[in-house]
Amino acid sequence: MKVKLTTGEEITTKSNEDIYRALKREGIYLTASCGGRGICGKCKIKIVDGNYKATSSGALTKQERDEGVVLACKTYPKSDVMVEIPRLSILTVGDKIAISKMQDLKEYLSTYGVEIKPMVRRVALEISPPSLDDKRGDLDRLTERLKELNLLPMRFSHGFVSSMADVMRLSNWSFDINYISTPDNIREAIYLTSKEFCDREFGVAVDIGTTTVVVYLVNLSNGKIVDTGSIYNSQIKHGDDVITRIIYSTEGDGLEELRSAVIEDVNNLITVIRERHKIKRCEINSVVISGNTTMSHIFWGLNPESIRLEPYIPTVNKFPVWRANNARLATNSQAPVYTMPCVASYVGGDIVSGVIASKIHKSEDVCLFMDIGTNGEIVIGNKDWLVTAACSAGPCFEGGGLTSGMRAVKGAIESVSFDKDTLEPTLNVIGDSEPLGICGSGIIDALSGMFLNGIIDQKGKFIKDKTSRIRNGENGLEYVLHYDKKGGKDLVITEPDIDNIIRSKAAIYAGITTLLNEVGLNIDAIKKVYIAGGFGNYLNIQKAITIGMLPDIEASRYEFIGNTSITGACLALLSFDLLKEAEEISSRMTYIELSTIRNFMDEYVSALFLPHTDIKRFKTVQGAMLHDAKC
Amino acid sequence: MKVKLTTGEEITTKSNEDIYRALKREGIYLTASCGGRGICGKCKIKIVDGNYKATSSGALTKQERDEGVVLACKTYPKSDVMVEIPRLSILTVGDKIAISKMQDLKEYLSTYGVEIKPMVRRVALEISPPSLDDKRGDLDRLTERLKELNLLPMRFSHGFVSSMADVMRLSNWSFDINYISTPDNIREAIYLTSKEFCDREFGVAVDIGTTTVVVYLVNLSNGKIVDTGSIYNSQIKHGDDVITRIIYSTEGDGLEELRSAVIEDVNNLITVIRERHKIKRCEINSVVISGNTTMSHIFWGLNPESIRLEPYIPTVNKFPVWRANNARLATNSQAPVYTMPCVASYVGGDIVSGVIASKIHKSEDVCLFMDIGTNGEIVIGNKDWLVTAACSAGPCFEGGGLTSGMRAVKGAIESVSFDKDTLEPTLNVIGDSEPLGICGSGIIDALSGMFLNGIIDQKGKFIKDKTSRIRNGENGLEYVLHYDKKGGKDLVITEPDIDNIIRSKAAIYAGITTLLNEVGLNIDAIKKVYIAGGFGNYLNIQKAITIGMLPDIEASRYEFIGNTSITGACLALLSFDLLKEAEEISSRMTYIELSTIRNFMDEYVSALFLPHTDIKRFKTVQGAMLHDAKC
Repeated sequence: MKVKLTTGEEITTKSNEDIYRALKREGIYLTASCGGRGICGKCKIKIVDGNYKATSSGALTKQERDEGVVLACKTYPKSDVMVEIPRLSILTVGDKIAISKMQDLKEYLSTYGVEIKPMVRRVALEISPPSLDDKRGDLDRLTERLKELNLLPMRFSHGFVSSMADVMRLSNWSFDINYISTPDNIREAIYLTSKEFCDREFGVAVDIGTTTVVVYLVNLSNGKIVDTGSIYNSQIKHGDDVITRIIYSTEGDGLEELRSAVIEDVNNLITVIRERHKIKRCEINSVVISGNTTMSHIFWGLNPESIRLEPYIPTVNKFPVWRANNARLATNSQAPVYTMPCVASYVGGDIVSGVIASKIHKSEDVCLFMDIGTNGEIVIGNKDWLVTAACSAGPCFEGGGLTSGMRAVKGAIESVSFDKDTLEPTLNVIGDSEPLGICGSGIIDALSGMFLNGIIDQKGKFIKDKTSRIRNGENGLEYVLHYDKKGGKDLVITEPDIDNIIRSKAAIYAGITTLLNEVGLNIDAIKKVYIAGGFGNYLNIQKAITIGMLPDIEASRYEFIGNTSITGACLALLSFDLLKEAEEISSRMTYIELSTIRNFMDEYVSALFLPHTDIKRFKTVQGAMLHDAKC
Repeated sequence: MKVKLTTGEEITTKSNEDIYRALKREGIYLTASCGGRGICGKCKIKIVDGNYKATSSGALTKQERDEGVVLACKTYPKSDVMVEIPRLSILTVGDKIAISKMQDLKEYLSTYGVEIKPMVRRVALEISPPSLDDKRGDLDRLTERLKELNLLPMRFSHGFVSSMADVMRLSNWSFDINYISTPDNIREAIYLTSKEFCDREFGVAVDIGTTTVVVYLVNLSNGKIVDTGSIYNSQIKHGDDVITRIIYSTEGDGLEELRSAVIEDVNNLITVIRERHKIKRCEINSVVISGNTTMSHIFWGLNPESIRLEPYIPTVNKFPVWRANNARLATNSQAPVYTMPCVASYVGGDIVSGVIASKIHKSEDVCLFMDIGTNGEIVIGNKDWLVTAACSAGPCFEGGGLTSGMRAVKGAIESVSFDKDTLEPTLNVIGDSEPLGICGSGIIDALSGMFLNGIIDQKGKFIKDKTSRIRNGENGLEYVLHYDKKGGKDLVITEPDIDNIIRSKAAIYAGITTLLNEVGLNIDAIKKVYIAGGFGNYLNIQKAITIGMLPDIEASRYEFIGNTSITGACLALLSFDLLKEAEEISSRMTYIELSTIRNFMDEYVSALFLPHTDIKRFKTVQGAMLHDAKC
């Protein structure tokens, strides 16, 4: 039997094979924290056409069942079927595009003048076996050898000691000890390895975004990225932004629910990648987490409530190094888990990662770094000073909260251009597949193009009858980007979507201008502007300027550098020196609370217009508008 | 309705009250790890007479049900009932006799020249509250204050940080930090306290014997013992001695079963004592565990297999300080759990406790310390040297493995004397109640008296028709110590019981003489012999000599000092200095493996006789035998 996806792929199932496993066999992964046993209810797909048998539907709502939604892991085709995979069910693995612009980590380390030297160190030990004449216990024997090597004091956790004796004996008393020395110089034993046992060294870098979770699995011996994966943060069902999540966390078991949700997401990704590359769980010996302050707190089960209450103070900015078993991660249970340090309640470890990745803290010139995710965080500074601020952008540039939005993964429309005459759009889709949705960079292109071509006005409202693609939808007027010919939903941009995008871009623009104003600088003083975010491998800066998201300066001063949260996490994973540098950076950064600055609201309101109420600030856009008007 | 116990107590039940709760209300505790919910099946009692309704018997075997055994927590009297409580169901609390001879711990500390200074230290902190101008996170704020006090580096566990923020805010930023500095000088934060939260400080000392588990709850402010409790080690159902337990631990889930069993015992005791004294769980902030090497390994879930395999090396002798959550103890989850250090596979932390308690390591003269439990461990030495060895005595001196044996708690026959003419026994019962069984000291008295009065011969066989109390029982001839008039079982000593006792006393005697021989000393060189063990508050040294358990020297050189495992644990609980002294002692002790010494077997076989095959070694006994023969 054939399973045809609305995206165009086609897979043949084996006899008695469910759709979840058939897709997995072909490298198409669905989220399933239960591993495909019909329990977690996450591997939802929609059967658009064809006959099938579903042996369980317990985890589905009546509405879902009525709409033809089934659990892929409990569904068997009876004929060829046409399947639509909802965006929340997709777990993307191996899709190296669309995430980080810096893939050669070893080379990147060399620009810092550091070598690969991960957090976990490994020292070979040979110790004399016990005998009737030498009756020291295993741990005492180990401790005395470490003393000779000047490695005491070292902390031996219960988990370390529980697994220690077997390796000592299996390895015939010749093994490696893996240990860490925390940033505050406490040595902790992690685990023992030997040629026979758990010999390879891998690490995991995790970017926990409010909307998207990204995992990189890295070979710690050579710095190579083994594989990458991304997934929507399952906390989304409890709210789109950090404030809603914080409120949810204070109700009943909310904190634990949110915590479990994101841990499951991370574990899902780790496990799929691990199995795909035949890596043992024990071989993943370290983890770096990079996320905003709220995400970092929830990941560790720490109450985030004080983040949203004046004076907006988190429990922790600099997280101690804890272990994978504390974090419930599906790696070596003793693996140290380092959390990129936060600066304040609304500037988190992801931004410190961004500074490490962009290197603005080493720059002679004043630079601006901006990470555009669900929150928009800005850093301005150079090697002498760094100031930072945050504005709430909302999830739309990660494809969240939009009718046809999706992450920048295979199937996402990443760029759009319009024919000036016919006003027909041309779509570029990641992976050249059928379009499944539209990601952040596509959204910016679409808005910019619709604006310059008069499909929408300066307030973002559709000019009716301008093109036949404008139609009445469920939520008022909408523009059809892509007509689905296979029975799925058309991909559209609605007026509420546009409102959403304009609010987001206004928050970002207002953040930049307010912070510049606070430090008494004009945008002209900025030599370089680094833009980070989950837009994909593509961001058309000029179009971002056109919609008034970014200041109107020459494009050459901009550089789009992808997902720097994950890049910074990878660098800290590979280099303990850079990990310590991250600690220093977080201490050096001065946080400015934009919401307490009167000017910020004025800037925001002025920016709720395409490109801006003060068109003089956007000379090149003004020129383009005049040009287009002339044509 | 009345519940009458075969021990003489009488309790009136309230309407709809089960027997478990009625007994508990009156301070009679049954073991019940499920808290009396009919699940664990431990609160077994036997209804000897009367009507009752039992609402559950699921956890009982058919044989038990046939014999009238019920679960106390699911049984309601319908008339007055007569109840027999099996010894394994009794959880003894508040019975300060019969455990340690040293009750005034503060005074005892003063003989060491140390004050109360527990492992957990408390330092008052006042930190400036967060404000819009001071945006440091809670942990950063705390860390900086600790830096000023020179208390960094300090390790902050995930558990500590998880609970930290609430206390800071509740206490209005004026609180105490509780922390430890481990023996190898790593500082670790434990928890925060404030006037409002978890202000008092208690500690728990635990003696994990192969047969008996003892818990002392100690007030760490004044050194007073709040309460004590004891219970049979539930591992007993998987074997009487450490070797059987080790073998069990290597089969399937055996290790986890044994571990859970003893943890439940300890938690049972802690919880009953805690509730009785209205002490909050969080107020128990430290724990010291004292047990033999196997018990210590199993308690921590460490594979004990290598202990019984040549060259008999344990995984750990010196245990790191771990936490109550690692140990799954029902105390403050962050409480440090210190394990008294072991010396070798068969000389454990309980013996290091014994040295601390007996102070032989400070003595100018050569002393001998012996702990008679299921294992018999011996230490010989003084302030300059210490040697130690172990022999397997078996559980009989703790009342284990004997037809009518029981722990030295209320209801136990602790001493026996015989009328020379009528040969009738006079029994002294702990708590002056009806006798329930016979404990170690009573066993020694009984054997000695039966021997000197010709009821048994030198091989321990009954002289038939010597008294009407000798009768045929299920296992051959037996002697009736106590006729039960209330329908329960008579208390007897059988010939297999006597064989058992003789083997035990022979092992002890052979251990002492072999070790003396190894260090080239005669018993006369020993100035003082300290005897420890769970005999109760009474041990008749002369009678122990009579049966040939102890060398025949003048009684004034002996001192019986009770359960020193728990005393040493209490001392380490109260004084970090003594805790460190325990570490030193364990390093100083030289272990000698008796089983590899040819002489040991000869000594053992010669001692399988009352008092010994070589009667010249027991001059005073010879005298008494002649004297008795003359009478």
